[in-house]
Amino acid sequence: MRLALPLEKLIDQLLKLPGIGPKTAQRLALYILKMPLEEAGQLAQAIIRARKEVFPCSNCGYLTDTDPCRICQDQSRDRAVLCIVEESSDIIAVERTGYQGRYFVLNKDFNLMEDNDLEALQLKPLIKKLESGEIEEIILALNPDIDGEIISRFLADMAVKYGVKATRLAYGIPVGGDIEFTDEITLRKALEGRKEL
Amino acid sequence: MRLALPLEKLIDQLLKLPGIGPKTAQRLALYILKMPLEEAGQLAQAIIRARKEVFPCSNCGYLTDTDPCRICQDQSRDRAVLCIVEESSDIIAVERTGYQGRYFVLNKDFNLMEDNDLEALQLKPLIKKLESGEIEEIILALNPDIDGEIISRFLADMAVKYGVKATRLAYGIPVGGDIEFTDEITLRKALEGRKEL
Repeated sequence: MRLALPLEKLIDQLLKLPGIGPKTAQRLALYILKMPLEEAGQLAQAIIRARKEVFPCSNCGYLTDTDPCRICQDQSRDRAVLCIVEESSDIIAVERTGYQGRYFVLNKDFNLMEDNDLEALQLKPLIKKLESGEIEEIILALNPDIDGEIISRFLADMAVKYGVKATRLAYGIPVGGDIEFTDEITLRKALEGRKEL
Repeated sequence: MRLALPLEKLIDQLLKLPGIGPKTAQRLALYILKMPLEEAGQLAQAIIRARKEVFPCSNCGYLTDTDPCRICQDQSRDRAVLCIVEESSDIIAVERTGYQGRYFVLNKDFNLMEDNDLEALQLKPLIKKLESGEIEEIILALNPDIDGEIISRFLADMAVKYGVKATRLAYGIPVGGDIEFTDEITLRKALEGRKEL
């Protein structure tokens, strides 16, 4: 197969993106070749600008182009509740629920199995917040896997030392889910967490 | 949801790409934010370079950065056989079969239902080739839909006028396919085109 070199290079670059396989990369590349030059330029520029102008908020770690971020600047938000998440994308999900507290993003691709080092989490800004006495509750919203579980327990212990309540998102069957196809661990957690009607 | 503006703009740009929905766009954008600046720059540059440097070959219409394209330049290829396709991406697929003839790309998003105008196909370069007497056979490899059928018949009639044989790709059950789940039109075509063993 003989492809034009710039086309091959574009396909190679697109292949680096997550979830983009060879067929999708080829389809996207051929589409980009047909875009008006102006639009292709806008796409390229958006990539550079986002990469250059967006950074983690110095206060909470959320991806922002202002420091502190818009959520930290928002005076109407509850300062007493702090939701701790792994990634900025988790904030986007929690925001959809109408949650009105603040956030703290761990922003670390932690792999405790390999690193075995909770110190890598850079918790100093979080400890400062806990020390301030402003926070009454931290809500641990980490992914429900082994790392998330270990870090949640570690952070909960830490919070308790500062007299701060630590809670965790409820485990259970997802709304709209199917009990028949729910895995046994989730179902066991759902049984344990059952509520009286 | 409050996203950093450059991040929102990047998501908007990614959403314009085919097959990229809101969730994929967000995932790609957040990934791009984490890329080393150099890599993000390479991606942006690959988009611009491909868009600027790749164009349809003046001889066959295949996407190329040299004119004529590498396939047209290749003297070892059979000049007597011309495979006619709708898009450059079809050439990529036919090339994988080991086909050794040449190509002609119609390069037109034709929609005969709307345009009803076969003249829009810009067939002058193809007619020149047919007139040259060099070509013995055109292989019509257009998509098996109504437009492809109409254009195939039109081009076949044209070829015959110039004393050139016109063939079409065989219809039938795809290799590895399942007769039970083959649609009736395909199965009828497969029956019609049955071969003696």
